[in-house]
Amino acid sequence: MSKHRSAPTLDDVAKAAGVSTATVSRCLNTPQQVVEATRKRVLSAVDSLGYTPNFAARVMAARRSFTIGAIIPTMENAIFARGLQAFQEEIHKQGYTLLVSSSAYQPAAEEEQIRTLVARGADGLLLIGHDRDAQIYDYLERRKVPALVAWSFLPNEPIPSVGFDNRRAMEALTSKIIELGHTRLATISGISKGNDRARLRIQGIKDAMSRHDLSQDDLSVIETSYEIENGADAFKHLMSNDNPPTAVLCGNDVLAVGAVRQAQQMGLRVPEDVSITGFDDIELARIVAPALTTVHVPHRDMGRKAAQALIQMIESNAPGKSVELPTHIVGRESLLGLNS
Amino acid sequence: MSKHRSAPTLDDVAKAAGVSTATVSRCLNTPQQVVEATRKRVLSAVDSLGYTPNFAARVMAARRSFTIGAIIPTMENAIFARGLQAFQEEIHKQGYTLLVSSSAYQPAAEEEQIRTLVARGADGLLLIGHDRDAQIYDYLERRKVPALVAWSFLPNEPIPSVGFDNRRAMEALTSKIIELGHTRLATISGISKGNDRARLRIQGIKDAMSRHDLSQDDLSVIETSYEIENGADAFKHLMSNDNPPTAVLCGNDVLAVGAVRQAQQMGLRVPEDVSITGFDDIELARIVAPALTTVHVPHRDMGRKAAQALIQMIESNAPGKSVELPTHIVGRESLLGLNS
Repeated sequence: MSKHRSAPTLDDVAKAAGVSTATVSRCLNTPQQVVEATRKRVLSAVDSLGYTPNFAARVMAARRSFTIGAIIPTMENAIFARGLQAFQEEIHKQGYTLLVSSSAYQPAAEEEQIRTLVARGADGLLLIGHDRDAQIYDYLERRKVPALVAWSFLPNEPIPSVGFDNRRAMEALTSKIIELGHTRLATISGISKGNDRARLRIQGIKDAMSRHDLSQDDLSVIETSYEIENGADAFKHLMSNDNPPTAVLCGNDVLAVGAVRQAQQMGLRVPEDVSITGFDDIELARIVAPALTTVHVPHRDMGRKAAQALIQMIESNAPGKSVELPTHIVGRESLLGLNS
Repeated sequence: MSKHRSAPTLDDVAKAAGVSTATVSRCLNTPQQVVEATRKRVLSAVDSLGYTPNFAARVMAARRSFTIGAIIPTMENAIFARGLQAFQEEIHKQGYTLLVSSSAYQPAAEEEQIRTLVARGADGLLLIGHDRDAQIYDYLERRKVPALVAWSFLPNEPIPSVGFDNRRAMEALTSKIIELGHTRLATISGISKGNDRARLRIQGIKDAMSRHDLSQDDLSVIETSYEIENGADAFKHLMSNDNPPTAVLCGNDVLAVGAVRQAQQMGLRVPEDVSITGFDDIELARIVAPALTTVHVPHRDMGRKAAQALIQMIESNAPGKSVELPTHIVGRESLLGLNS
């Protein structure tokens, strides 16, 4: 069975819909500019004839495909879900469709997906974090495809970011923990290689320790990928030390949930025997018992603002402006002071 | 600033890489068939020249773009995350890239996304559930783009499915609940219009009631969208009846988590005062306290098998075969017998 047959043309569609070819073209390229009734008639003709617009030609004519690509590290665990949903809602309002790819935290996979999305005509890309090979930015530069980073705010990096200061957010949480009397600290971090968010959160813990005259060398660090089970394993390992930590700062809520559940399995009370904190404030953080003290990331706001900034870059052909969003500590039950 | 400039050609790439144009073409179309070293050389030339293959032409030549599209109802709440991740891992192993779109449970958005993915050259589509306008299937038929449904198994529908029997799964859970002595049943369901999974789960509850000589009319049904807060609101409403249910069957784990939390807020003990069950067995179901009795859906297995079936359809140009996967009840703490 052949996949191809004599294809209907733009002319055929125009005739069937009783409009000019220019109107058909406008319907396909800038549908916002065509009144609803005409658009419906044209799309119905496109549909019934089985017309496939030549997208290369269309992109060339419109200089836009009204598609935006996003590459996120993972679709599991809802870490990026809420922000991405808000990003999609906003671009959709402005007439764009979102295509998402997930890299499983693999740089090679991310690069391949960037190329796939560019080749499929994406007008712009949303990427997570700044850590990647510089040649990818060269590639995007040559293709004139604007890209924006979210979930991290580093205004001096080569591409603009709409995000938050991971380092300062974690420093603030750590300072609070130290001020509550904790001195034996440990962290269960995501894999920091290739992940600026993970690396900067560890750095933030160390900043706070230095500022409070604790030695950075005393911080126990375990790096592992963001899975509940891995948080549990790492916690078990940390608590088997001779001098176990009184507070375990987790790189995100997923790891913290694993730590809390492992503590319970080991017969340790959270927070009376050990405090555990998260990062992100995803739904899991509220659902686990005890609920997690964590860093609230404004996921929806970040998604919406990233969408606005990226569309601005696409439509004005201007360099993007970085936007920093605030985070704050949400105090729940998993953190207890030692001074009280 | 113009977005376009004199573009490098296939010839330029072949010259730079020191290979024939046929080899360049093969690298772009069926990279699996080219030895690693050559492929790297060609891709490096493609990259350094900034060559953008004409994708329309490439798809025509290869009859394949090695891209598969998936349209899921939502990216939030991790309902589809695990299965989709497994789907992606499997297609990736076989040389395909996944592009995902989310419809927010809106048929019009889903239809637009199907058209976008087809226009971007998707070789095949993964869709969730069977409820959609028949004209979409006509459209896919005309475009010769194979599509496969997951999360539902209805072998007599127009397109094949790799999923499970939502109706029978919920009937089994309900039977168990009735056999434990519950007769006053209620359900907090997803919106059933346009969602066969939600509709069939309600039907499964009614099947079990009939089989156990309970009147289907006695089932209280609230339909709401799958958000924790909505589960909480619906639960509150159900419990304000004069004769409140002793068991609340929720359409998924997200709604059930909302119900459990609302019960706790109302001072009701789960399961001593009221039993609550979920559906899906996502991570939230294990994390909430008490942990949910729920229907385990084999998310990863379903994702992997759906990928295999869809690639088979794409590569052999054959009609797809439906595959039914088993579900089972996971007994945790949120369900208690009244007989004991």
